[in-house]
Amino acid sequence: MNDERIENDTPAPTRPDGLWADDLTPGLTFTSREYPITEAGIIEFARQFDPQPFHLDADAAVGTFFDGLVASGWYTAAVTTRLLVEAFPVATGIVGGGGELVWPSPTLPGDRLHLEIVVGDRTWSTSRSNRARVVVSHQTVNQRGEVRQRTTAQLIAWARPPQRESRRPAQN
Amino acid sequence: MNDERIENDTPAPTRPDGLWADDLTPGLTFTSREYPITEAGIIEFARQFDPQPFHLDADAAVGTFFDGLVASGWYTAAVTTRLLVEAFPVATGIVGGGGELVWPSPTLPGDRLHLEIVVGDRTWSTSRSNRARVVVSHQTVNQRGEVRQRTTAQLIAWARPPQRESRRPAQN
Repeated sequence: MNDERIENDTPAPTRPDGLWADDLTPGLTFTSREYPITEAGIIEFARQFDPQPFHLDADAAVGTFFDGLVASGWYTAAVTTRLLVEAFPVATGIVGGGGELVWPSPTLPGDRLHLEIVVGDRTWSTSRSNRARVVVSHQTVNQRGEVRQRTTAQLIAWARPPQRESRRPAQN
Repeated sequence: MNDERIENDTPAPTRPDGLWADDLTPGLTFTSREYPITEAGIIEFARQFDPQPFHLDADAAVGTFFDGLVASGWYTAAVTTRLLVEAFPVATGIVGGGGELVWPSPTLPGDRLHLEIVVGDRTWSTSRSNRARVVVSHQTVNQRGEVRQRTTAQLIAWARPPQRESRRPAQN
């Protein structure tokens, strides 16, 4: 009965070969591929989501705080998400409740960004015994080791569900 | 001499009619227009930056944690940035060092999101007398008052530069 509730409460995996909360032990690390940042990519994002001169046009950016074309921090965050989804294989997907971001330096055209991911604290839910909050910290770093974003994300993960062979399918 | 340094240190405004740090008094509020969220917009962002089934395909999302198509939190963040840039007119632009995000509920197709912005603490720099850190808090809210994102952003703003009429142009 309790098992049944737990099994019903576990979302369908989006990566059946991925990691469950049981597997996400603090200290586990992952590294992503490199994502090449181009002037065109920076400008395309800025036109849609952050239309400011220093994100849109190298000439218009002269004399502004950045004194040249730089990526929106939110473009760096979007690229970081793409790399996290690829490199951090959680069975039920990357389900986040929020987090903290710091941009120590702006992403520039020509940057090749990769992610260095570290699994932090895992806290099992007291009300839902198959669910855990997992803190994941990652740095978005370019080819010269310059850190463009530091992120601390709060994710939700689920315990590996009981084997199903031994019981009838759950009713809905 | 000191004035000269300060004037040289002030970036060129991106919105000359906008607000300077002097104007950003705690408690000041702004409200944005509405941004309509469509299934196409959610999917387009997800394909590029957050390709997970629950952000890409309503059918594939059934049974997952969200049990349907929802926006990536980072799409909500990108739309929030667009609305902030439009609704919060800072003279030197929105220059952010980072912040905190919480997603109390996922953005859905059909949401019409607007921003409720409140200026928080302003801290003048001790080393650079014409620069201040300004905390700006904003909620991203849909047409039913459901909060999709809570953000606390750390921005940099500059004091209104001295009038130039009374002195020769600064040398570079």
